[in-house]
Amino acid sequence: MSVPTMSKDRTARAREALARCDALANFSEDTNSLRRTFLSPPMHNCHASVAAWLKPLGVSAQVDAAGNLRGTYAGTDPNSPRLLIGSHLDTVPNAGKYDGILGVVLVIALLEELDGRRLPFAIEIVGFSEEEGVRFGVPFIGSRALVGRVDEDLLGRRDRNGISVREAIQQFGLDDQGIGEAALGDDVLGYLEFHIEQGPVLEKSARQLGVVEAIVGQTRLALRFLGRANHSGTTPMDARQDALVAAAEWMVAVESYAKQIPGLVATVGSIEAKPGATNVIPGEVRLSLDVRHRSDETRSGAIRELMGLAETIARKRGLCSQWNPMLEQDAVLLDGFLADQIEFAIRSTGCGPHRMASGAGHDAMILAERVPSAMIFLRSPGGISHDPAETVLLEDVERAIEAGIRLLDQLGLSQEFLGRKRRA
Amino acid sequence: MSVPTMSKDRTARAREALARCDALANFSEDTNSLRRTFLSPPMHNCHASVAAWLKPLGVSAQVDAAGNLRGTYAGTDPNSPRLLIGSHLDTVPNAGKYDGILGVVLVIALLEELDGRRLPFAIEIVGFSEEEGVRFGVPFIGSRALVGRVDEDLLGRRDRNGISVREAIQQFGLDDQGIGEAALGDDVLGYLEFHIEQGPVLEKSARQLGVVEAIVGQTRLALRFLGRANHSGTTPMDARQDALVAAAEWMVAVESYAKQIPGLVATVGSIEAKPGATNVIPGEVRLSLDVRHRSDETRSGAIRELMGLAETIARKRGLCSQWNPMLEQDAVLLDGFLADQIEFAIRSTGCGPHRMASGAGHDAMILAERVPSAMIFLRSPGGISHDPAETVLLEDVERAIEAGIRLLDQLGLSQEFLGRKRRA
Repeated sequence: MSVPTMSKDRTARAREALARCDALANFSEDTNSLRRTFLSPPMHNCHASVAAWLKPLGVSAQVDAAGNLRGTYAGTDPNSPRLLIGSHLDTVPNAGKYDGILGVVLVIALLEELDGRRLPFAIEIVGFSEEEGVRFGVPFIGSRALVGRVDEDLLGRRDRNGISVREAIQQFGLDDQGIGEAALGDDVLGYLEFHIEQGPVLEKSARQLGVVEAIVGQTRLALRFLGRANHSGTTPMDARQDALVAAAEWMVAVESYAKQIPGLVATVGSIEAKPGATNVIPGEVRLSLDVRHRSDETRSGAIRELMGLAETIARKRGLCSQWNPMLEQDAVLLDGFLADQIEFAIRSTGCGPHRMASGAGHDAMILAERVPSAMIFLRSPGGISHDPAETVLLEDVERAIEAGIRLLDQLGLSQEFLGRKRRA
Repeated sequence: MSVPTMSKDRTARAREALARCDALANFSEDTNSLRRTFLSPPMHNCHASVAAWLKPLGVSAQVDAAGNLRGTYAGTDPNSPRLLIGSHLDTVPNAGKYDGILGVVLVIALLEELDGRRLPFAIEIVGFSEEEGVRFGVPFIGSRALVGRVDEDLLGRRDRNGISVREAIQQFGLDDQGIGEAALGDDVLGYLEFHIEQGPVLEKSARQLGVVEAIVGQTRLALRFLGRANHSGTTPMDARQDALVAAAEWMVAVESYAKQIPGLVATVGSIEAKPGATNVIPGEVRLSLDVRHRSDETRSGAIRELMGLAETIARKRGLCSQWNPMLEQDAVLLDGFLADQIEFAIRSTGCGPHRMASGAGHDAMILAERVPSAMIFLRSPGGISHDPAETVLLEDVERAIEAGIRLLDQLGLSQEFLGRKRRA
C-alpha cells in the first residue's frame, strides 16, 4: 500500500483489487466458509482493512451509526458537491468473495488511480453494512440509513438470537441515536455502484461490462393446488385428482409462457406435496412463484396470465387453485444521464457495453429514491454467485477501473452533472 | 348375539356386521382416531370381541403365536378339509372402520347364516394380526406365519421404540417359539377374503361386488433430476438448468403414458426441490415413482419407457437423471377356479360382478403362495380408504353375505373343489 500508485500499471491494480477481496474473505463468522452478516464481529476487521487501504490516499474512513464505512476523498474545493461510490461489505452464508466487496475495493483502486488528482466533486466511498438481508430477514439496512428510512419497526426487528437491530448497533460499539445523521445531505450529485452481474447475460453476449438501466420489479406468490389424496394402486388414472400432476402441468406452462416474453423470468423455487408418501396420490401441493421484469405492466400481465393458467389447469382436472401475494415490488429505473455517461466511458476504452436490467436487488435501488443512481456490472463467469465458486476475470476488473476513471473525468467536465441537484 | 340367527333377515345381519365394525373401531391406540397396529394393547379387546361373537356359533377362537385370531367351524366330518376365510384386524393410523375388519365380521355373518348347517369342509375364520406394515415397516406378518415365512430376520425387526417383532409377541402374552405351528397344514382347500375395494372402480362401473383375478405387481423407484441452482432474478429463461421444470415435464409425460396403457397406474407421490428457496432455481429434485400393473411384462416395459423419458427430458435440458429401484414385486394371480365360482355365486344373486385386479396388496397375495386363494371386493363409496371417511353401503354388505353363502353352498357341491390338494 505504501508503493507509489503512479508506478503501478492497471493490471497490477486490478490484481491488487482481487487480492483485497481475498483478504476480506478471511473475516468470516464461519470457520470453513465465508459468512459476514450485519455488524457481526468479523465486520470490525473488515472495516479496519478497508480503512487502512484508504488512509494513504488521505481518506479518513469512519463507521456511521448504521454500520456503513464511509470516507471522503476531497474535491478541488472544500465545498465541492459529492459523488457516492460504493457497494456492500456483508455477505450471504457460504458466500463468494466478490459480491458487494469488489464494488468497494474498486473505489480504492479508482482513488489510487487518481493519485492525488482532485475533481470538481468529492468522492465519498461507502461500504454498506447490510444488503443481503441474512441476519434480520430484511435487506438494505445500510442504504436505508442513507435515505432516512431506518424506522422504529426496522430497529426493533430481531435476529435468530433475539438481538434487535438497535442492540446489534450498540453491541458493535456504535451510537444508535446517531442514525439520523447517516442520512445524505443536499450536496450529493449521485450514486455509482460497481457489482458483479450474478448472472450469465454478459458472458453469453461476450461483454466485459454492463450498464444497468433498471432494477426489475418482482412479485412473489404462494400457490396451492387442491385435489384429493388417494391410493396410488387402487385409483385408476382417469379417476384421480392428482394435485402434483396439475402443478407439474402448470410449471411447464409457466416456463413456456416466460420464454415467450423477452426479459421475463418466472421461477418455481419451492414445492411441497402432501401427504408426500410414495404410495399416495398427492392431494395438495404448495409452491412458490417468483416473477420479475423491468416493466411493471409486463409483470402484472404475466401474473394475471399465470394465475389464469393455474385456474384453467386446476378446473380441467377437477381441482382448485389458490394463491396469496407474498411480495410486490415495483421496478426501479436508474438514472438515464448517468447510464449514458457510463456507456460512453466504456465505449471510450474500446469495449462495447451491454445495456441491461438487473434481475437482483441492489443498494442502488434504495439510493435511487433520493439521488441519481447508476450501476456498472462486471461479467460473472458461469453466471455463478452466492457460492464459493463465484469469480470475476482480472481483465474485466482492469476494464472496470479504466472505464471508471474515464467516467470520473467525463463527469468532472460535465456542467450538466455538476449542476444537478439532489432529488426532492 | 344370543338372538337365534334364523330369525334375522339379511338386512339385519348386514347392519349387524357394520355395527361390529363400529364396535371394533373403539379399540384404538389413539384417543380421537383409529390406529390399531400389530399386537398393540387394544388388539386384546378386539380379539375378545370377535371371540365372543364366535362363541355362540360353536367356534372357539384362539390367538396363534403370530397374533392371528383363528377359530374353526366344523364340517360334516371331524376330518373334513378346511376352507380359510378371513382378513386383517390391524389398521393404519387415522384409519377407517372397514379396511380388513369388514372381511372378518363378514365371516361371522356367514357362519350365523349357516345357522348350524354343516358343509363338507370346515371353515376356519382368520383375523390376521398384521397386514398394513405400520408398526415394523414390513407388511403381512400375520399371513406370512400361515405360509411359514416368518424368519429370524423378520422376528428381529424393531419398531420405533426398539421393540422387536419377537418381543412384541412375548409382550402380548404369546409364545414366540410356537410360530412354526401357525403354518397351514395339508388339509386346506383354499383361502377366501372379503375386502373393501379401496378404489373407485366398482362405483364407477355401478357394481356392488368385484371378483379379484390378480393382485398387481409393483415397482417403486427413487429418481433424481440434477441441474444447476441459480439466482431466480438474474438467470434468463434460456440459461437455466432448472431441475424442477424438468421434473414437471417428466411428471406430465408419466401421466400421459400411463393413461394410454389400460390398467397401468403410475404415481409420483413425493417430491423435494433443493435448495427449495423462492428466489433460487432448483438445482436438484428428488421424487418417487410407483408403477403398478397386473402384467409384469407391461410394468417392466413401462418402467423402461418412463426412465427413457426421464433421460430424454433431462438431456434435452442439459441436466442428468438418475434412479434407484426401491421395490420390485411381481403380480400375483389368484385362483381361476375360485374366481369363476365367485362370479357364478354373485350372478346367481342377480347382480353382475366386475372382474378386476387389485391395485393394493392383500393377505390373499401371501396365502396364494401356498393355497388356492380368491378375493371378493365390496364397492368403496368415493373410492375412499385409509381415512375416517372410508365407508361401505349396507346393501353391498347384504349382497356380499348373500353371494358368500351361495358360494359356500356351490363349493360344498363341487367335487372339483373338494378334491383339490394344497399346492406343493
